[in-house]
Amino acid sequence: MALALALGRRGQGQCWPNPAVGCVIVQQGRIVGRGWTAPGGRPHAEPQALARAGDAARGATAYVSLEPCAHHGKTPPCADALIAAGVARVVAPISDSDPRVSGKGFERLRAAAIEVTTGVCAEQAMTDLGGFLQREVTGRPHLTLKLATSFDGRIATATGHSQWITGPEARHMVHGLRARHDAVMVGAGTARADDPMLTVRGHGPVRQPVRVVVSRRLDVPLMSQLARSARDVPLWLCHGPNPDAALAEAWDGVGAARIACDLVGQQLDIASVLENLGHQGLTRVFCEGGGALAASLLRAGLVDELVGFTAGLAIGAEGLPGVGAMGLDRLQAAHRFRLVESRAVGGDVMHRWKRDGA
Amino acid sequence: MALALALGRRGQGQCWPNPAVGCVIVQQGRIVGRGWTAPGGRPHAEPQALARAGDAARGATAYVSLEPCAHHGKTPPCADALIAAGVARVVAPISDSDPRVSGKGFERLRAAAIEVTTGVCAEQAMTDLGGFLQREVTGRPHLTLKLATSFDGRIATATGHSQWITGPEARHMVHGLRARHDAVMVGAGTARADDPMLTVRGHGPVRQPVRVVVSRRLDVPLMSQLARSARDVPLWLCHGPNPDAALAEAWDGVGAARIACDLVGQQLDIASVLENLGHQGLTRVFCEGGGALAASLLRAGLVDELVGFTAGLAIGAEGLPGVGAMGLDRLQAAHRFRLVESRAVGGDVMHRWKRDGA
Ligand SMILES: NC(=O)c1ccc[n+]([C@@H]2O[C@H](COP(=O)([O-])OP(=O)(O)OC[C@H]3O[C@@H](n4cnc5c(N)ncnc54)[C@H](OP(=O)(O)O)[C@@H]3O)[C@@H](O)[C@H]2O)c1
Ligand SMILES: NC(=O)c1ccc[n+]([C@@H]2O[C@H](COP(=O)([O-])OP(=O)(O)OC[C@H]3O[C@@H](n4cnc5c(N)ncnc54)[C@H](OP(=O)(O)O)[C@@H]3O)[C@@H](O)[C@H]2O)c1
Repeated sequence: MALALALGRRGQGQCWPNPAVGCVIVQQGRIVGRGWTAPGGRPHAEPQALARAGDAARGATAYVSLEPCAHHGKTPPCADALIAAGVARVVAPISDSDPRVSGKGFERLRAAAIEVTTGVCAEQAMTDLGGFLQREVTGRPHLTLKLATSFDGRIATATGHSQWITGPEARHMVHGLRARHDAVMVGAGTARADDPMLTVRGHGPVRQPVRVVVSRRLDVPLMSQLARSARDVPLWLCHGPNPDAALAEAWDGVGAARIACDLVGQQLDIASVLENLGHQGLTRVFCEGGGALAASLLRAGLVDELVGFTAGLAIGAEGLPGVGAMGLDRLQAAHRFRLVESRAVGGDVMHRWKRDGA
Repeated sequence: MALALALGRRGQGQCWPNPAVGCVIVQQGRIVGRGWTAPGGRPHAEPQALARAGDAARGATAYVSLEPCAHHGKTPPCADALIAAGVARVVAPISDSDPRVSGKGFERLRAAAIEVTTGVCAEQAMTDLGGFLQREVTGRPHLTLKLATSFDGRIATATGHSQWITGPEARHMVHGLRARHDAVMVGAGTARADDPMLTVRGHGPVRQPVRVVVSRRLDVPLMSQLARSARDVPLWLCHGPNPDAALAEAWDGVGAARIACDLVGQQLDIASVLENLGHQGLTRVFCEGGGALAASLLRAGLVDELVGFTAGLAIGAEGLPGVGAMGLDRLQAAHRFRLVESRAVGGDVMHRWKRDGA
């Protein structure tokens, strides 16, 4: 099961809107087939593993990291494929929360006299597939917020100088995290100040995550790297109601997609932004700041996971804060996150936290 | 040797101005005596270990974490004690930097036909005895700066609410760190805002560290907990030239010690403060903030070690920064620290960093 889960994770960020599932077929203690959801979401893990196993699948045990699907989508149901291959037993940690599947895949297998075992490694499966499951339940993707700061929580000097706060190992890890998410999101302030590319580099060929920029009035330079690369790597702009028509047309012209979201007060409603992204099929979103967007997400309680990188230098109070104004006066009002991991990454400290319940 | 070093560390914070030394006597593979510098600095480690060993010291090997002293201070030279006890061999990692001792202890032993081995575990000894050695060379104690902050580098909300950012385990560890230092130092802002006690609690009976408050004009409430406890636990006030005579008298009256330091511009010269503390015999100082004092120390390059505790909550940009204004505009101008340790302490992340060369 651990192997099936590990295989499944290979698909993270690569197969949205489908879940990143892994499958291992075991015949008399020997692995005869392995598979994971292919880039783009198809084929699913099970048919690939079954194809590898061939005749050896007959009477075998199939370990799948999520309940096999039972509905005819763009592919025939995986439950049927398992039945047809003659497997004797299916082990899957959790059932799918998609109402078209939930429990029905297991039912179908049992009806064909296949032994079904569930619950094994359920916690890990829930973590790995959290984005997919959460989107089905709440309509919003799983959101990870990254913060790479100096020892004193700054992301740039007063003059906006922000390159190389953390070291090459941390930056490499950030690119790996991007690759494991469906989309990378930043606020318009970061897009304007840094002219970033937001692609995955240094991790071999990967399906590039969608780049999402949040800007009420589409206020991002049309000559930015993001704009100029919009035909090669998807660029989605989340904006408010009634954008300037000429600007909208210009962005459509460079190949960006536009998503109209609601406002709260004078700003985009960040919950509406995430719901729209979920609606577009995103299951895992990686937000890289800046400070204003991070503060909005934290204040709204929409951060599922925090990843911090802390560097060994102090910038001082004039520096740009990693999290903007939050309007908090009492500590009790702050959301507490639970530490799940901390370790050195190069010369920096990496720490990961989860929202309680996430 | 590792044991001698570990025993030596037991004396950290307890025996200034003397070094915290450990000694182990080994006779034919058996430990026959152990000792470490006693609270207050006397007796030294060697005579205690020799007394335990008794006759078994004859022909034995003595492991000492620092070159045995060779001069008549308030105690007779330890080198002579080792010779008199008839040890055959002395292993010590490093020589003393005190000119009254440096090399002379080893010379004396060799002259008595005792085999002397040096260099073993020298790096660890230099770390453990860093405060003592540094004070002898630079006149300043070793300075550790602690920063307990929220995920985004804040030490309090805008309204000054700062209790319980980090959890009980981190706070317990901070008390342990206090105990291993000769003094705990804070800026007057912290003394005024928090009315802290700055004592070691929860670690059994220890020699309480000196409490040092830095305030140019002795501007700390005379009704504060610090003032009221000054007869029980030493309280030293570092102030500028020509303090108000009545205030000075009042502080002398409550039992505080006053140390006049130089100014740079309108503020106390923090380098002068540390030199004065070194002159008073302090070898290891633990600074707990606040933001203004931390910024002064960092800007002056006087921080030898940084200890950070990061909690899993965000306070936002209105919160009080852990490090005050530093007047830095380019990242290259910031001192870089080297990560030496990072791990979870309760629900918080603890990270330790050293100045390069420290
Ligand atoms: N070290 C690092 O890891 C790192 C990472 C990222 C950024 N940075 C630095 O951070 C700085 C930019 O940060 P920033 O705080 O100014 O900008 P930001 O958070 O990147 O973007 C803020 C902008 O996003 C738009 N926005 C729309 N809806 C929003 C909402 N609900 N909440 C917040 N923002 C919303 C607004 O622009 P519109 O008016 O266009 O809607 C707003 O001005 C740059 O200097 C960059 O170098 C550093
Ligand atoms: N979470 C935590 O771990 C933690 C720890 C400590 C403090 N805090 C919080 O920090 C706040 C206090 O911080 P703060 O920045 O206002 O004050 P601070 O750094 O504690 O003290 C600053 C004061 O120290 C004196 N000083 C003298 N020479 C100085 C020098 N060279 N550099 C800097 N200061 C010098 C000045 O007062 P004079 O004019 O009297 O000379 C100055 O106003 C409080 O709200 C406290 O709750 C939190």
